Amino acid sequence: MTLPKKTQLVSRADFEARLRRIGDERYHDKHPFHRLLHGGGCTAKQVRAWVINRYYYQSRIPMKDAAFMSRCEDPDLRRAWRSRIEDHDGGPDEGGGLRRWLQLARAVGLDADYVASCEGVLPATRFAVDAYVRFVRDMPLLDAVAASLTELFAPKIHAERIAGLLAHYDFADESSVAYFRHRLDEAPKDVAFGLNYVLDHADTAEKQLAAAAALEFKTDVLWSQLDALHSAYVEPGRIPPGGWNGRSGLTVVPEREPA
Amino acid sequence: MTLPKKTQLVSRADFEARLRRIGDERYHDKHPFHRLLHGGGCTAKQVRAWVINRYYYQSRIPMKDAAFMSRCEDPDLRRAWRSRIEDHDGGPDEGGGLRRWLQLARAVGLDADYVASCEGVLPATRFAVDAYVRFVRDMPLLDAVAASLTELFAPKIHAERIAGLLAHYDFADESSVAYFRHRLDEAPKDVAFGLNYVLDHADTAEKQLAAAAALEFKTDVLWSQLDALHSAYVEPGRIPPGGWNGRSGLTVVPEREPA
Repeated sequence: MTLPKKTQLVSRADFEARLRRIGDERYHDKHPFHRLLHGGGCTAKQVRAWVINRYYYQSRIPMKDAAFMSRCEDPDLRRAWRSRIEDHDGGPDEGGGLRRWLQLARAVGLDADYVASCEGVLPATRFAVDAYVRFVRDMPLLDAVAASLTELFAPKIHAERIAGLLAHYDFADESSVAYFRHRLDEAPKDVAFGLNYVLDHADTAEKQLAAAAALEFKTDVLWSQLDALHSAYVEPGRIPPGGWNGRSGLTVVPEREPA
Repeated sequence: MTLPKKTQLVSRADFEARLRRIGDERYHDKHPFHRLLHGGGCTAKQVRAWVINRYYYQSRIPMKDAAFMSRCEDPDLRRAWRSRIEDHDGGPDEGGGLRRWLQLARAVGLDADYVASCEGVLPATRFAVDAYVRFVRDMPLLDAVAASLTELFAPKIHAERIAGLLAHYDFADESSVAYFRHRLDEAPKDVAFGLNYVLDHADTAEKQLAAAAALEFKTDVLWSQLDALHSAYVEPGRIPPGGWNGRSGLTVVPEREPA
């Protein structure tokens, strides 16, 4: 824990500052994999591995939000939360975030059905993401909302990603980065609601500590996914049993990879 | 269990017939409380008690459906299921089933906030309804969908209820029965999807038995709510500790009740 273990309740403004500091210190925009990705340093294989593994996270977000709603006794809270599921799943016909992520998958030369099958997802990715879904299903609602506040830090990374992908990769165009463009609109609305909820409900020192710990937990969930990706596909580049081998699910002939 | 314990897989048509027979034998349209209600035999207090207790069931349906979605790994299944939550919760501003139920509550002289608070709900109602939410959260998806198939039998009871309420009670008008009118449109769409899902997925004798048992379980959930209501407010009319006393939450002067 990097937070001081204060036992007094701090003011709303101080508590918000504390939450934002967690992002400054621990959000995954600081991870070397993202620097590599946004700076144009990733091979096609590394980009694909990121797309495959990150899809697993995306695919569990609506389940996580449904788990949250399944515990909301307040219809108003459910009504406010529901758009998160709609944003990701879309309707039976029209697109949503998951389908936009699959557009990105196609753009990088992956078979969308392969990506959607979640085959080849790194076990460590599954463990981290599943831990998040369980956290939201089991923990107090306040903690569950606080864990969603990594969205506070997301617009910056999405903007960097759009610029970085478009600047450095041939596959990148408006269609393949559509997921991130949409999140730039969707995330601020969600996070304004979530931040207010947390600031309103964390009305004891214990709840403030718990909410901050929940947000730290969530930064761990995101960071550990990139650690796993980096370990498997960058350095040392040791793909664990069950991880995508760089060849399955391709729709294009793979470039020659260094041995 | 009233079903024969067959161990062979039966045909799709025979299995559907078996499911429909469960409704013929056990659906709560056969309960004496509904006969009393639809026939005009309920006192104002009994109607109010029904409105208060049934709200609890309504209020948990979106949580039940969210619990189901939180377990759906298939985005298409989630997309098809999501409208159930929308139907009941409505949007942040526009009405949904819960708000239509509160219109009924107002029409029968109850304070909507009192009803929405779920104070005064009979403990047995809570136990039955909470058992249903837990069932959907914990059991195989097939069983969870099968439990929803009481909707197969709902249009008949809704039509009887609309006619019975309008014919026999001063409070009843189109606004107060709007909940049931909407369900006449919403339920068939849901149940067509659910029935197909169950017929498609119950592809072994064991799964057919489990799905039938799940539907029986759900008829128990509905029936036991009416038993509790009947016991508390009709015969013997012994309101258990914690149950609505006939006076809380009224917006009108209560009629004189027999001692």
